[in-house]
Amino acid sequence: MTVTVINYDRAMGRWEPNARGRLEEAALELYGERGYEQTTVAEIARRAGLTERTFFRHFADKREVLFGGGTLLEERLTAAVAAAPDSAGPLEAVAAALDAVGPLFQERHERSRRRQAIILAHAELRERELIKLATLARALAGALRERGVGEPAASLAAEAGIAVFKIAFERWTDEPGEADLRQAMREAFAELRAVTAGTPAP
Amino acid sequence: MTVTVINYDRAMGRWEPNARGRLEEAALELYGERGYEQTTVAEIARRAGLTERTFFRHFADKREVLFGGGTLLEERLTAAVAAAPDSAGPLEAVAAALDAVGPLFQERHERSRRRQAIILAHAELRERELIKLATLARALAGALRERGVGEPAASLAAEAGIAVFKIAFERWTDEPGEADLRQAMREAFAELRAVTAGTPAP
Repeated sequence: MTVTVINYDRAMGRWEPNARGRLEEAALELYGERGYEQTTVAEIARRAGLTERTFFRHFADKREVLFGGGTLLEERLTAAVAAAPDSAGPLEAVAAALDAVGPLFQERHERSRRRQAIILAHAELRERELIKLATLARALAGALRERGVGEPAASLAAEAGIAVFKIAFERWTDEPGEADLRQAMREAFAELRAVTAGTPAP
Repeated sequence: MTVTVINYDRAMGRWEPNARGRLEEAALELYGERGYEQTTVAEIARRAGLTERTFFRHFADKREVLFGGGTLLEERLTAAVAAAPDSAGPLEAVAAALDAVGPLFQERHERSRRRQAIILAHAELRERELIKLATLARALAGALRERGVGEPAASLAAEAGIAVFKIAFERWTDEPGEADLRQAMREAFAELRAVTAGTPAP
């Protein structure tokens, strides 16, 4: 618990320690146990030991509980693109950014696996995920242009990076146990290079 | 007017010569004139000189008028991937497929420009377009696997190809006059190769 989090929750109303995280965990449990459609906001709040009002201070609806991390991810990715060495090419900068956010997911492997299973099972959630990925690609392209990368190189590098992320993420969440997301992303980048160069993958 | 179209329309009910195309044209006119939200299905049907009932034989709602070509595009793309020479690598096969469908769009440049402007102006239409592109990527990956391409190479080549298509298509619809979509796609593929190889674009 950091001072920032406490201040944030206080600013939103009654202080509930880590309300956001508890709501996310409660939602994932209930979606897994009884299904996404069958779960209500009231049930999520109850499972988390919080009120519906607290739920709606943090999330617009039960779908958004699954997508709450998007803004943080976008901030981290664009900051990492900005921080990449001057010598890095556009796709290298994107690869460095994805590498930098790997640990954010890695420590939540089981939670990511449960979340992914719920998303894959529902068309409306898959669509929301596509929108999130498109938003990330747009943000990455913007961060590359800030580095002086022209178009269409900036958009192509961003879209290619997000394709790598998507495919590596799916493979990673497909595997139980100790699978390594950063390793999966590095392998997918290598495969993309091989595919683009027209040579067979190693 | 081909025999196929006539049979198709007959099978659906009362025969209306090229009803589908007339509805598409009427919808684009009205969306451009008075805005997408402000246009009703009744108005589209009236402008096309047809009934609402005929409209609903062809499209689920006023949004789907803009996305009616998706199935044909998917069929053409996957057929072209299947027909690519055995020697073609995955991305080459995708590039050949995109090249093959270029003329479908080229002859509708003005219509594509009008459609794109409407889609870009509405979040729900941009989302529907993302879903269409994701569906095409999945179909392309499937066609590549049919050729014996393994994963993740098939998905990466498909996603990269769709990124090229998306970016080239946006540039093409940005330009009035005689812009060449196939040329734009070839340039975007060359740029993707340059970006992926880590060298500056030519």
